[in-house]
Amino acid sequence: MLGRLNHVALAVPDIAAASTHYRETLGAKVTEPQALPEHGVTVVFIDVGNTKIELLEPLGENSTIRPFLEKNPAGGMHHVCYEVDDIIAARDHLKASGARVLGDGEPRIGAHGKPVLFLHPKDFFGTLVELEQV
Amino acid sequence: MLGRLNHVALAVPDIAAASTHYRETLGAKVTEPQALPEHGVTVVFIDVGNTKIELLEPLGENSTIRPFLEKNPAGGMHHVCYEVDDIIAARDHLKASGARVLGDGEPRIGAHGKPVLFLHPKDFFGTLVELEQV
Repeated sequence: MLGRLNHVALAVPDIAAASTHYRETLGAKVTEPQALPEHGVTVVFIDVGNTKIELLEPLGENSTIRPFLEKNPAGGMHHVCYEVDDIIAARDHLKASGARVLGDGEPRIGAHGKPVLFLHPKDFFGTLVELEQV
Repeated sequence: MLGRLNHVALAVPDIAAASTHYRETLGAKVTEPQALPEHGVTVVFIDVGNTKIELLEPLGENSTIRPFLEKNPAGGMHHVCYEVDDIIAARDHLKASGARVLGDGEPRIGAHGKPVLFLHPKDFFGTLVELEQV
């Protein structure tokens, strides 16, 4: 069921400063910031050849990234996103095995225009897992 | 300078339980546990096609994973590892730009038999970064 690693997401307090740092210090290719108000984040992607690093900055008062940064003011590793062929089949399999899907359990459209959902970190040893249908 | 994502490392309190969970719930291909006493960890790798997920369990009293798990008892995202062509050149470039290399600054041999070093998370927005020469 588990497909490729689509991206690793890192929360940062200042996406402009982080983008500059990744470009200048690590020679990384960083996209321009993209505001996703429906997800409460501004994102950039770093193409590392085989997968992507997503930098996340909170957008709006209700951003779920905001409490994460209150606990980790410098930023930190936020989630991993795996690709699946069929997100509804994957969700139903995971729910049947006891994993909890966040929110109302229905996929939403993510940063790449594809259906995504998130699994509770308590069911994956403290790691927040996103699934994206590709 | 920044090459492919070699792996994402997730610390877990019980690598046998985590391996079973990743196999059974996510259908993942998980290697057999490998003890690396010189790094203070037991590791397994999950091949996700384009990169690897590394699960880490502390090994020995002085394991650096132990304090991480004291702060995050359920486990959590621990580090990302990027590939570089020349680890000495990468290190010297990073040091010149102000990044701090952990330990004595000299590469050690990592889980794949290749030279590795770690960069201070404070210089990468709270994310612990490993570099591996490939």
